[in-house]
Formats: sequence, structure tokens, C-alpha cells
Amino acid sequence: MKENHPLKQAYSRSAYPLVGHGKRNVQVLKDALAGVDGDLDSDMYGSGKVIEDFEARMAELLGKPAAVFFPSGTMAQQIALRIWCDERGMRRVAYHPLCHLELHEEDGLKELHGIAPVLLADRERTIGLADVEQMPEEVACLLLELPQREIGGQLPDYDELVAISAYCREKGIKLHLDGARLLEILPYYGKTAAEVCDLFDSVYMSFYKGVGGIAGAILAGDEAFAARSKVWKRRHGGDLISLYPYILSADYYYSRTAHKMAQYYEEAKELAALYNACSGVATKPSVPVSNMFHVHVRLPKEQLESILLSICENTGIGMSSYVAAAGEDASCFEVSIGDRYAGVPKDALRQAFRSLAVQIQSLAARA
Amino acid sequence: MKENHPLKQAYSRSAYPLVGHGKRNVQVLKDALAGVDGDLDSDMYGSGKVIEDFEARMAELLGKPAAVFFPSGTMAQQIALRIWCDERGMRRVAYHPLCHLELHEEDGLKELHGIAPVLLADRERTIGLADVEQMPEEVACLLLELPQREIGGQLPDYDELVAISAYCREKGIKLHLDGARLLEILPYYGKTAAEVCDLFDSVYMSFYKGVGGIAGAILAGDEAFAARSKVWKRRHGGDLISLYPYILSADYYYSRTAHKMAQYYEEAKELAALYNACSGVATKPSVPVSNMFHVHVRLPKEQLESILLSICENTGIGMSSYVAAAGEDASCFEVSIGDRYAGVPKDALRQAFRSLAVQIQSLAARA
Repeated sequence: MKENHPLKQAYSRSAYPLVGHGKRNVQVLKDALAGVDGDLDSDMYGSGKVIEDFEARMAELLGKPAAVFFPSGTMAQQIALRIWCDERGMRRVAYHPLCHLELHEEDGLKELHGIAPVLLADRERTIGLADVEQMPEEVACLLLELPQREIGGQLPDYDELVAISAYCREKGIKLHLDGARLLEILPYYGKTAAEVCDLFDSVYMSFYKGVGGIAGAILAGDEAFAARSKVWKRRHGGDLISLYPYILSADYYYSRTAHKMAQYYEEAKELAALYNACSGVATKPSVPVSNMFHVHVRLPKEQLESILLSICENTGIGMSSYVAAAGEDASCFEVSIGDRYAGVPKDALRQAFRSLAVQIQSLAARA
Repeated sequence: MKENHPLKQAYSRSAYPLVGHGKRNVQVLKDALAGVDGDLDSDMYGSGKVIEDFEARMAELLGKPAAVFFPSGTMAQQIALRIWCDERGMRRVAYHPLCHLELHEEDGLKELHGIAPVLLADRERTIGLADVEQMPEEVACLLLELPQREIGGQLPDYDELVAISAYCREKGIKLHLDGARLLEILPYYGKTAAEVCDLFDSVYMSFYKGVGGIAGAILAGDEAFAARSKVWKRRHGGDLISLYPYILSADYYYSRTAHKMAQYYEEAKELAALYNACSGVATKPSVPVSNMFHVHVRLPKEQLESILLSICENTGIGMSSYVAAAGEDASCFEVSIGDRYAGVPKDALRQAFRSLAVQIQSLAARA
């Protein structure tokens, strides 16, 4: 979609966008800094109070001996996998075919680290114990993404996770958690972050998804793992003289949103039910297990765009800023619940969903 | 030196530190943001007005078709060399033995890109045409660092540069400029940035040295080079969803300091002359060619630390926050002139240098 697509513009101007925390603009950083003393010293190449304190608190949250702040998850995860590959002397890892490293990183893992992936499970479901047991080749590390974002944020049952973890420990396979949205899944599992992370050898968590920060990531593991990750962070060009703009905003938004994940989860279930009540519309998963889900509609992309645009203009409700094609005559978009949803008037919401149902029905009648 | 070294503490508290623009604290970011409208949209993974406008202005400054903003020079330069290596199908480059890539990057170039360096010239001087002509092996790219920071910020004559550039073009060797401190050398050369960059195929420039920003770098070259650098930026994990905290501060401090480089250069020469007037003290280079130089003293590190500490406490003049050993019974530190120097009272400065001369002399008499 182009920058200036009418739906994107209308969504951006809409009174009640349903997705996320708010606009990604400079005010996000200004708000985070407003209460910070200007005399606070910058971090310096990974050292200093501002970075070390935050890393210590995140290590505690995740129940790991050490945590390292990174500018991006792309960098943090490639490095985690490289460390485990070096430790086992084997440049092979396993992950889902829709893993972030496979889709969105221009093959950095392969091009920079020479690591080959073994793809487990398929594009419709999450990785299960059977997939791991039947892996065709030996690997140094298995990466699990919880929730699996590209299929709407699906999760394995917790017992399955526990079984996979036990199997990997038995076989000497390191288990890495792509926990970009780790906090978002805790209400469904009914576990603490540390309990989930205890199943894994290393964990990555992001600060600009549900947390609502600007950018940045934490990579946690044991002390030796953390020390080696800092060497690779420098090699990647991520050991910036100052990361505090991201750290201070991660800290600020973490303190404002981390305790709201159960609310976002309940709201996601509520909103998904509204979508599923429309004929021709189905969410994936049908009942969300985090703050996110995908909306699939049996209409071509252009038709759904028109409908969302009219709803936006007539009701003030922004359902999505974009629509993606999903095979022939079908389309979809992603929904992540943040702070915005709670402020949406219920009558406007009902009006928008009535309009969605009517417009889809009218197109179906004509087809 | 440990975080809490008494000299570092005293320097940090001193009324008149001689080096740099000011403290690296959160106020630096707050000042940069104060005049920015909170409604300004974030950049999004390398797109958006805030990043594209700045890249366009920097491309114009450097006289190149395209420029790409990077979180760090470490990332930008490895990528530049990788692109030129791929283009020539040869994983070998040439640079100075005290190049940033050789000293400060944990061998990222070798470990991530499999690129081997050929080291030219020696630890006392800059690379000349003869070094390039006599290179023992073919290389894809030659990196020149202007000024050569680790030897006090030395520069080749401009004619030598022109000759190296012509030779490299003739031989099909790409020429890359490590211009971390590019603006700082323009007054000495009497050239524009574009004129200097015209000698090179690709150029990196930093925003947190003489410019005084928080972090970040520009990599400039032709359109194809820039496009490929963006792919590698994503692979490295540097294509952050939001780089605007660094871009806005780079922009702000660039507008405040870029025109002052001639002043910093004159002040560097003035301050170096004060050091050179002390017996047992010599700057490298003896007459600075930019805003920086190194101060070498014929005293062991611990003795020089004590002297600088006493000067700091008795005159308020902070000459350096640290001292490094430089062989047996000698030591040194680096000076870079920024905004602070102009505000230092001349009588306090004279008093400090009298004290430096007397204390060194008194130790020499005892030895």
C-alpha cells in the first residue's frame, strides 16, 4: 500500500481508530522524557546507570541471570541463534516457516551468519512436539515465536510448550523464545513472564509492540550468553554510544502498559466476537489468545478497502489502516489492541459493525 | 579507567572542561526536541518525511546522489565495504592499521562479512600514494579515514588525496571515506564537503563527534549503492521502526555546529600551542589540522593523572577526564574542541598551564 492510500489517510484522521496505542509521532518520545531529569547521564556503549538498571529489571522480570538491551529484535535474535550455533559447532536452527527471520530480515541470518534454517510445522498452525521429534536434521537451537504473529497470534497449549522444552533439554537443543509479544500472552497462559521464560534458554522481548515504546529489545539468558551477545552487538553495529532514547521510552511505556495486558486480551476477544458475528468475516484465531488477531474477509482487497473507508468516514471508527490480499477474492488485516480501544464509544462501534455487515451482505447479494 | 576514577569525577565537576560540547546527558535530547512539533510522524522502517528529508539534505551536502541514515558508523562502514567487495567479487579491502574497523568493532568485518583487511602505512603516519601503489594484494576497496583519529587526527596533503583517488579509479579500486569527522577537516583543506567527497565512491559521516548529536551516521554514494545499503541495514538489524530520536538530534546539532568548524580548528591550534609551550609535553600533530589532537607527556600515567586532578581542583580547568599509558614512562590523552572551549576564561586557562608546566618541571627535577 502506498503512503498516501485513501484508507490509510482516513484511518489516520478517524476519531476512533481501533488498533494500537496511538499515533507513532514525536509526542511519544516527548511524553516519555517529560518526567526525566535532564542531568541524567547518557549510557556509554552499553555501560552506565540508565542501561544497566533497566537491563537488571528486565532480567528479573524474565527470570534470567542477565539481560542486554538491543536497538532491534532483528539484531538480538540473529545473535542469540549465532551464539547457540557456535556453542554446538553447528550452523543450523529450526523455526516456523512464517518466522520473522524468514520473512522480514532480508535473510540476515543466512547472509551474515551462514546459518541455515529447518522449517517446522506449516503456514496454518504452530509448532508442536511431534514436529520437533520428527525434525529431519539435527539443529543447535529451536526458535518458538509466542504468539505466532503471522497466523494471527496463535499459541500452542502450555502443556505442549512444556513437553517441547523437556524434549529439547534432553536432546541438547537450545530453546530460544521470540517473545516480541511475550507480555501479551501471559493472561491467556495464566503464567508470569519468568515462568514462561524458564522453559527457554534465551528470550527476546520487544518494547514497541504491546508495550508501546519507540524501538528496542531485550535479550536475556545466562551470564555467559549475555557477555557473548554484547560482543556480537558491537560487531553488528548495535553497540551505540547512546541508546537512552529507546531505553527511557521503553521504561516509561512498560510502566504504563505492562499491567494492562489482561485488559487488552479481554478487549481483543470482545472485538473479535464483533467481527465473527458478520457473515463472510472470520478472525484467526477465532477466539484470540493475546491482544491480537487477524480478520479474514471473503471479499477482494479493493472491495474491503472501500467498505472500511466508508465506515471510517461515516462512523469515525477506523477498523484498519490497510487491507492485504489473501488469495483470490479474499483479504485480511491485523488487529492489535492497545490503549485506544477502551476509549471507543460503544454506540459508534455498534454502528460501524452494522455497516460492515450490511455492506458485505449487499456485495454478496450482488455477486 | 574505572567509572569512578577521581580524575573523571573531578573533570565532570570542573567549572571549565576544555573538551567537547558539553555533558552527554538527557538534556541534549530534550534540547533537540524542544522546538519539534509533537505531531510530526515517526519515520517507519527507513521511510517517511523525517528520515527522507534529512537523507536528501545530507546527500546534497556530500555531493552524492543518495544518502542513508544508519544508527551507527560501525554498521554503515562494514556495509559499504561489503557492497564494494560483492561488486568486485573479492573479500579483501585495504585500510590503516589503526582503522576503527580494526580496533573497535570486535572484528565485525571479518566475523560477519568474511572480509580480510590489508593494512597500509604504519602506526605513526597516514596512508600515502606510495602505500597504495605498493599494496601487496589486490583489494576491492580502500578506506581512508580523514582525519586519522588514533594518531591525533592527522591528514594527508590534499594533493596526495587527489593522487590516491586518481590511482584507485584507474585500478578499479573503490575508495571509501571514513569521514566520521569530515566537517572538522574542511577548514584546513579549504574545501567543501562535496569537493572532498567527490574523490570517493562512498562516504560515511558521524553526528556525535564534532557535530554534537546523540548517535547516528550517514552513508552516501550512488543510488544503487544506497539501495543495497538499505538491504544490508535490515540484515544487520539497523532498520529500526523509528530512528527519529537520532535523526532529529543530528539535524538540530548539525544546524548549530556545522558552521563553527573553522572556529573549533583555530581554537584547537591555540590550545595545542599552550600544551607545546610546556617542557615535556608535545601534541600530535604538533599543529592540529582539525578540531582534535593528542597530548603526549613524558610522565607515567599515574603522575599525569595526579597533575591534571590538582589542576582541575585548583583552577577549575578540566584538561582531560582520563589519561592513557603510552609506552614506558609516558602517557597521553585526546582533545577535541567543541562549544565549551570558547567559554573558558583566559586567565584561568593561563593559570592552569602555568601549573602544568611547574608540576612537570618539579617532577623532572626530582627524577
